[in-house]
Amino acid sequence: MNTAILLISCPDRKGIVARVTNFLYHNNGNIEGADQHIDSQTKTFFMRIEWSLEGFGIPQESIPQSFSPIAEEFNMQWTLYFRKEIPRLAIFTSAATHCLYDLLLRCEEGQLTCQIPLIVSNRSETREIAERFKLRFFDFAKTHKNKIEVEKKEIALLKEEKIELVVLARYTQILTKQFIAEFPNRIINIHHSFLPAFVGAKPYEQAYSKGVKIIGATSHYVTEELDAGPIIEQDVVRVSHRDSLEDLKRKGKDLEKVVLSRAVRWHLERKILVYNNKTVVFD
Amino acid sequence: MNTAILLISCPDRKGIVARVTNFLYHNNGNIEGADQHIDSQTKTFFMRIEWSLEGFGIPQESIPQSFSPIAEEFNMQWTLYFRKEIPRLAIFTSAATHCLYDLLLRCEEGQLTCQIPLIVSNRSETREIAERFKLRFFDFAKTHKNKIEVEKKEIALLKEEKIELVVLARYTQILTKQFIAEFPNRIINIHHSFLPAFVGAKPYEQAYSKGVKIIGATSHYVTEELDAGPIIEQDVVRVSHRDSLEDLKRKGKDLEKVVLSRAVRWHLERKILVYNNKTVVFD
Amino acid sequence: MNTAILLISCPDRKGIVARVTNFLYHNNGNIEGADQHIDSQTKTFFMRIEWSLEGFGIPQESIPQSFSPIAEEFNMQWTLYFRKEIPRLAIFTSAATHCLYDLLLRCEEGQLTCQIPLIVSNRSETREIAERFKLRFFDFAKTHKNKIEVEKKEIALLKEEKIELVVLARYTQILTKQFIAEFPNRIINIHHSFLPAFVGAKPYEQAYSKGVKIIGATSHYVTEELDAGPIIEQDVVRVSHRDSLEDLKRKGKDLEKVVLSRAVRWHLERKILVYNNKTVVFD
Amino acid sequence: MNTAILLISCPDRKGIVARVTNFLYHNNGNIEGADQHIDSQTKTFFMRIEWSLEGFGIPQESIPQSFSPIAEEFNMQWTLYFRKEIPRLAIFTSAATHCLYDLLLRCEEGQLTCQIPLIVSNRSETREIAERFKLRFFDFAKTHKNKIEVEKKEIALLKEEKIELVVLARYTQILTKQFIAEFPNRIINIHHSFLPAFVGAKPYEQAYSKGVKIIGATSHYVTEELDAGPIIEQDVVRVSHRDSLEDLKRKGKDLEKVVLSRAVRWHLERKILVYNNKTVVFD
Repeated sequence: MNTAILLISCPDRKGIVARVTNFLYHNNGNIEGADQHIDSQTKTFFMRIEWSLEGFGIPQESIPQSFSPIAEEFNMQWTLYFRKEIPRLAIFTSAATHCLYDLLLRCEEGQLTCQIPLIVSNRSETREIAERFKLRFFDFAKTHKNKIEVEKKEIALLKEEKIELVVLARYTQILTKQFIAEFPNRIINIHHSFLPAFVGAKPYEQAYSKGVKIIGATSHYVTEELDAGPIIEQDVVRVSHRDSLEDLKRKGKDLEKVVLSRAVRWHLERKILVYNNKTVVFD
Repeated sequence: MNTAILLISCPDRKGIVARVTNFLYHNNGNIEGADQHIDSQTKTFFMRIEWSLEGFGIPQESIPQSFSPIAEEFNMQWTLYFRKEIPRLAIFTSAATHCLYDLLLRCEEGQLTCQIPLIVSNRSETREIAERFKLRFFDFAKTHKNKIEVEKKEIALLKEEKIELVVLARYTQILTKQFIAEFPNRIINIHHSFLPAFVGAKPYEQAYSKGVKIIGATSHYVTEELDAGPIIEQDVVRVSHRDSLEDLKRKGKDLEKVVLSRAVRWHLERKILVYNNKTVVFD
Repeated sequence: MNTAILLISCPDRKGIVARVTNFLYHNNGNIEGADQHIDSQTKTFFMRIEWSLEGFGIPQESIPQSFSPIAEEFNMQWTLYFRKEIPRLAIFTSAATHCLYDLLLRCEEGQLTCQIPLIVSNRSETREIAERFKLRFFDFAKTHKNKIEVEKKEIALLKEEKIELVVLARYTQILTKQFIAEFPNRIINIHHSFLPAFVGAKPYEQAYSKGVKIIGATSHYVTEELDAGPIIEQDVVRVSHRDSLEDLKRKGKDLEKVVLSRAVRWHLERKILVYNNKTVVFD
Repeated sequence: MNTAILLISCPDRKGIVARVTNFLYHNNGNIEGADQHIDSQTKTFFMRIEWSLEGFGIPQESIPQSFSPIAEEFNMQWTLYFRKEIPRLAIFTSAATHCLYDLLLRCEEGQLTCQIPLIVSNRSETREIAERFKLRFFDFAKTHKNKIEVEKKEIALLKEEKIELVVLARYTQILTKQFIAEFPNRIINIHHSFLPAFVGAKPYEQAYSKGVKIIGATSHYVTEELDAGPIIEQDVVRVSHRDSLEDLKRKGKDLEKVVLSRAVRWHLERKILVYNNKTVVFD
């Protein structure tokens, strides 16, 4: 069954919920889920509302036009999605393939509602996994010299394939700001530390050397500043002096998989709003 | 600043949110927080909505009358609370006093918004703690024989003191169904296991003997069936073969304190709805 | 590099550690890891000690004979393993294949040191996964009627293949006591609840209906009594009223994978001792 | 019953455990607990061994002399403790008193085996708590100007009172390196963040602004570099956009209490070894 999902953020004031829910009620919309949040520091209102399109009084394609007067009245930033429009996702990966496998298997068993038409890797041996899952594979290694050029090919490919979300599944190459600008809040990265601790390379080595008693993983939207974009999800696991660096890496892999896949699922289900370099996640 | 809090549950159908928020909007109510939930199995709608009474168009004492037509139309069960009416709470306790101390200190530092006029204990040595905190103390030991009689005194005392919530802070005596019937969903107990595992006496001994790798604590409303009322909160901590029975008890105490105090706080902030022997907690 | 691993349990008394470590020292053994534990209730001593065989003064095949006088003196139960003898493991599975995949991928990336020569399933469609990983596949559906007979075939197959560990990866058929008796403490099951809560069928349905705020998974050795064997590992995840039954199942899958794979890894690394229907895990 | 506890660290080589356990065995020592660890990066051996002094062949005061040849042979750093020598502890505190209360109550109920003769605070109102628990109270406010001078008084007081461990229970004033040098690995601080994230002032404000999904607390030994000493324990709790800064602070308090008290307990039970600015905790 098809539903519409509306994500809204705007300055908080009286009457927002009444106006939005009246709009749905008067058009015979049945609300299937609604969440709201008020950020009391910035006086900002956030809402996610989902309603059934069965019997809804406005044809799908006319909803934006019908809703826009309300949006204007309240100075809303808003996006409208439809469940039946399945998002298309590309996975970028490198040598460590556990997150890649994890996403593909979750997709296969129906946990993630998306299409994954292609995999990009800078390691040719990943081709084998793409073949196991019958996906197109692009071997796009980049050097410092040809980076801009190769990224242009990647961007063209992603647009041609109508990719909505790029997932960096332990992808080891840093994207340029040009690339990032093409996909604002539409690139999700997994960083293998509890950010903001241990930014950058070799976070497990950093954690081991520091002697922390808990390690973590963080999924976030990619912005220009390295490992500093809006955090979507984090999780942790306990370690001790008994754990070697290899143990940290092994334990961390399980974290990375769940933390990345939760972020991807929430994005696909339109449960994330971004503001002030932070996220509201209506999980 | 005073606010009103409305807790609603009713059969789910179109227009509920629109009607409620219109009611507030047309009376100049500024929503400070709203949460809703639809139980898709039973098609039940739940809502908690809080709004400022500053400038609200209906005098506080007339709100129930003004709202009742909407409540009737949608067949609502509903309760209205006001922030300024501070709930009165009584603590029942026995030999283990860590939860008692914890609640008193949280109250003292402002984490729990309530008045605690009295403590009931079946151990006279608890009097000392009551004196430290300058609270009235009732030494109400019960035997199998005088239980009904003593409970009558307790009930009379609680009513006289206008007690709204009874907290069983590691209280070791089982209440009769007559007592429980006087305070439906208004008695919170802490059970020192991860329910429904290890019901009844000596749960840590049971857990130790079973060799579980994680222990827990559970706060719940008290119903006639022992340790089987609606669960409000649970938390757990990891144990291993290294932990003796004494270690389990020590680790468990920290759980009991946080799990009980969260439940009490949510109750005091009107964040809990009960249905089907389960809870909706709008935390 | 090859090492020997000795697992010991015996009544606690003076001199055990001195005797064992002297035995190694006088034969030029370099200890690579040692853990011990005293159960103070039953006065039982447990030890796991691992030493390098490089330069060790006793040939590998003669170690048992050389060590047995010490074992007799202290009335030890003991087992000796060698790292280079890679254990052989069979996976039994049914319709839910996430744990199967998880084990195969962990094996492939070197997290689990074992050989997996075969998969047994009561669902023929699992053959496809076996083929992806180039493993032998046995489609052994059982009815109430032919159970004993089919199990005999299974036992014969497992012995022929020198299988040391049987892993029930969400296998839905209950093994007979005859089968279990063939593999004492060598069958690991994953149960999708926080045992001892929710034994038997449909644990997520039970958990959902009970309204628990945390769900769990438990790996344990299989004994005659259903879901009651020695617990090896447990883990949990938080749920709320927002989670549907489907959400519980989805969240639970991630638990099942990590909880089962940890148990399998510890077994393969000879880190588990069983006593009194409980486990000592030297992780 | 009295026991001896020996903490050892030394370069790893053959025969250490054999030598130590023989020493105990030949002097009729009954081992009550033993843990060891080998750091494979630095090839360092760590051991904690505890034995009963009942019937032990060497008088308590002669043990160091008897053991020192072994210590010299293996180039050990070692410390010997006796259970019956109860450590003396001083608490330094400021305006936030939840950790102070927590330590006092744990001491009172026997979770922490120590004497707490005195409290130092830079806030005179804490005197009331000291009086509740009948402890000496020192109101030692420091300005930038008189810091060295006041610290001299503090050091003199701590020495006079034979204080072994100083606990900074949300103490807000930074100690000078002179003070710290007097108590190497004998000052424990609680920092209200998941270190190394959010060093320094206002860590909850930093965490809130960064939008992390998990907050933490860290207990560590104090060294010259601020918030960078050897980490003893960490724990975390989940937060979301629903949590205000005040919620973070409230949730954090529960973390701070358990994380600090665990560290203090492990120190008092002689379970911590420090090396390379990290800790080995034999919990």
